Amino acid sequence: MIEKLKDIIEQPERIWTKEIDETYYSDHLARIKVRPAAVVKVVSTEEVSAVLKFAHQNNIPVIPRGANTGLTGATIPVEGSIVLDLTLLNRIIDLDKETFTLTVEPGVLLEEVQKFVEAKGLFYPPDPGEKKATIGGNISTNAGGMRAVKYGVTRDYVRGLEVVLANGEILNLGANTIKNSSGLDMKDLIIGSEGTLAVITKAYLKVLPKPKYSVSMLAAFQALDKGIDTVLQILGANVDATAIEFIEKRAVKLSEEYLGLKFPSQEGEAYLLFTLDGEEREEIIRRADKMKAICKENGALEVLLLEDEGVAQTTWKIRGAIVTAIEANSQQEPIDIVVPINKSAEFVKFTKEISKTYEIDIQNFGHAGDGNVHLCIIRGDLEEDEWQERLDKVLYAIYKKANELKGLPSGEHGIGLTKKKYYLEYADENEITLMRAVKSAFDPKHILNPNKVF
Amino acid sequence: MIEKLKDIIEQPERIWTKEIDETYYSDHLARIKVRPAAVVKVVSTEEVSAVLKFAHQNNIPVIPRGANTGLTGATIPVEGSIVLDLTLLNRIIDLDKETFTLTVEPGVLLEEVQKFVEAKGLFYPPDPGEKKATIGGNISTNAGGMRAVKYGVTRDYVRGLEVVLANGEILNLGANTIKNSSGLDMKDLIIGSEGTLAVITKAYLKVLPKPKYSVSMLAAFQALDKGIDTVLQILGANVDATAIEFIEKRAVKLSEEYLGLKFPSQEGEAYLLFTLDGEEREEIIRRADKMKAICKENGALEVLLLEDEGVAQTTWKIRGAIVTAIEANSQQEPIDIVVPINKSAEFVKFTKEISKTYEIDIQNFGHAGDGNVHLCIIRGDLEEDEWQERLDKVLYAIYKKANELKGLPSGEHGIGLTKKKYYLEYADENEITLMRAVKSAFDPKHILNPNKVF
Repeated sequence: MIEKLKDIIEQPERIWTKEIDETYYSDHLARIKVRPAAVVKVVSTEEVSAVLKFAHQNNIPVIPRGANTGLTGATIPVEGSIVLDLTLLNRIIDLDKETFTLTVEPGVLLEEVQKFVEAKGLFYPPDPGEKKATIGGNISTNAGGMRAVKYGVTRDYVRGLEVVLANGEILNLGANTIKNSSGLDMKDLIIGSEGTLAVITKAYLKVLPKPKYSVSMLAAFQALDKGIDTVLQILGANVDATAIEFIEKRAVKLSEEYLGLKFPSQEGEAYLLFTLDGEEREEIIRRADKMKAICKENGALEVLLLEDEGVAQTTWKIRGAIVTAIEANSQQEPIDIVVPINKSAEFVKFTKEISKTYEIDIQNFGHAGDGNVHLCIIRGDLEEDEWQERLDKVLYAIYKKANELKGLPSGEHGIGLTKKKYYLEYADENEITLMRAVKSAFDPKHILNPNKVF
Repeated sequence: MIEKLKDIIEQPERIWTKEIDETYYSDHLARIKVRPAAVVKVVSTEEVSAVLKFAHQNNIPVIPRGANTGLTGATIPVEGSIVLDLTLLNRIIDLDKETFTLTVEPGVLLEEVQKFVEAKGLFYPPDPGEKKATIGGNISTNAGGMRAVKYGVTRDYVRGLEVVLANGEILNLGANTIKNSSGLDMKDLIIGSEGTLAVITKAYLKVLPKPKYSVSMLAAFQALDKGIDTVLQILGANVDATAIEFIEKRAVKLSEEYLGLKFPSQEGEAYLLFTLDGEEREEIIRRADKMKAICKENGALEVLLLEDEGVAQTTWKIRGAIVTAIEANSQQEPIDIVVPINKSAEFVKFTKEISKTYEIDIQNFGHAGDGNVHLCIIRGDLEEDEWQERLDKVLYAIYKKANELKGLPSGEHGIGLTKKKYYLEYADENEITLMRAVKSAFDPKHILNPNKVF
């Protein structure tokens, strides 16, 4: 293999077959480790194509991989595979201000995309918590994030993709147009497919003019379900909130301690944190006032408009650091179940019962505005066997509940490897058969990220 | 066949095999006519499933069909086929105000959807010109329409679908959630697939709170390209226009005469027609003023805020009747090419040259805000042979130009049968091969709407 790879890849220092860095054995959480046969850092679409052509001819599995921030094992290698590291395919190619289209390679990081367009007065709305993920990874998982309430998810910002198929063919899918009714929608099929159908080598992203003003607001409630119920009324009031997040006080406490910062409200047990954006500050404030009134009617103990920029930043920093703060104390299993928005409160309540039943700590937080509930199931000081056994029971129970509520196992992280068995438990068998048939249409030899998702 | 269909369909009066109404031989434009073997009006998902099971076992082609408003021949039968008429599958099943989800059967008309939700203070944004199309047809072509600038297209408002596969299996795709990263995106694959992959039997649509105010504005320009160029600046100014349409004076004249109404501006040769919507009238007016200033800077001869509701309605009525007015005088070929928004002016200019070169009248109008340019290629008094020959040359020329500008043959009507040869001329062969493989994954015997699109 090494000889053939040397023919394809110009610099041999971009090929590893012997001393492979252990981070390539797994994803961010490093729960399962498999040594691949080779790692290749590619720098062009042509190299991706050549590697795939070679792999296809020789039935070698290929695992596309970005910045290693995945949480579901989607990039864990299989035996004898080539890991295709796309992080050097990281150029921002073009910004077309007339059509609001940014062309990037897949290895560009989300934070680089955001910074680049914002410096030009533009705005890339998708805003998952992990800013150091690659844009290719964001597209492969259809990443969501905070601003989905108003702006939607990654899928809504991909106009087109250049991809390489399993056999090495290069295709351009979608177009730099606003409408498209020309043929089957292959582009949307690639988005969220977690590297199982094709390798993304270029993305044409939609950007927007940057909103002039953004305002945050924090509401404290006696209990979490009270807060979450308020969200439904806010969504019905057409106040066009950009983000609606929920957090519990005990998560805030952990994060406060971890960061050495102070949350602006110490009232109650749970919080809703909002942002609003727009072109006129006064108009935003009027919408914030409407939201404030709704919160008050629903028993909010305190509602703070975070007019001080420093206070707003601190608040979001505390929200953003929850997972890191949890992980500083214990191993955890991250869950990103999504349920219909009117079922969020019921789902969160259920996780609290489960926590009691199985005597395992669960921290809840997440995107209240879109029903995407994040759970951290916390290991604490459980022994490995006990942890695995109890975790599995908890996971079965909560995925079962999510299914009963007509929710889905993943709102933004993807299924990957670690959620596969829970996903298959409740997925329609006929739909999975169809997905496999589509997979075979794209990749008849199943060399691309095999055994993931379905 | 008739005996078996009688076993499936409860009332025999919903089956036709002998005296088949001629409207079933073709689509709205009735250019190509093929007599099907049978027409069946189904009333339930189970009937759709049973008909497909039977057809699948016996290799009988099935043509799904809505309200017969299609313009591309997508519903033209093939010899020996069963036409599956879905217009009686027309119940509005549920409106879930908490999750903003409307559940409908595919035969419900767009205007019924709009009326139903608006009566409840809600809003279904997609707004194609043809309001008497079924929602199933809208989904099958990924219909766009006027409000795509701000609100997107039909695809953006479909949360989930119940579909029946070629073999009769019933599947539920998507979910009533805002985010979804769980498995391959089969729902988006069905949207815009023009009946080639599955039959839609239920749709879960996303609706929004209804904006409180809507304001229209009309700007007159000396020439069309000047007007269209202005659009780019308006899009860059973040004024959040709902619709940006362009019309030429000669189209307005035709429509004025046809309706016996008067357009509010008689200045110039071309018009931009805008709407803005929102929650505060003053805030909308401020955005309108920004747009007005941009129009004036770009040489607009007159900019009218259509504050009088009657005048606004008349203006939109005249815009809406263009095609009907053209058709009252002559046969025409409707085109819905979409190009990147900064290429609209160049494309329209090109169609004017083509009109001269081939001595054939072309009327331009359409969605300036999203690059979706409608052309009516007008037959006038040309003899059939001459018309067909010249039309074919014109079509080759304009689809070629659209391709050069990185546009697509269809922004909202679909490819169907009549645009297939022009679509295949410029489509990537490898992508078409892949589409056919996906088609085979869904429908191995190719019984569903065969020979359409790709």
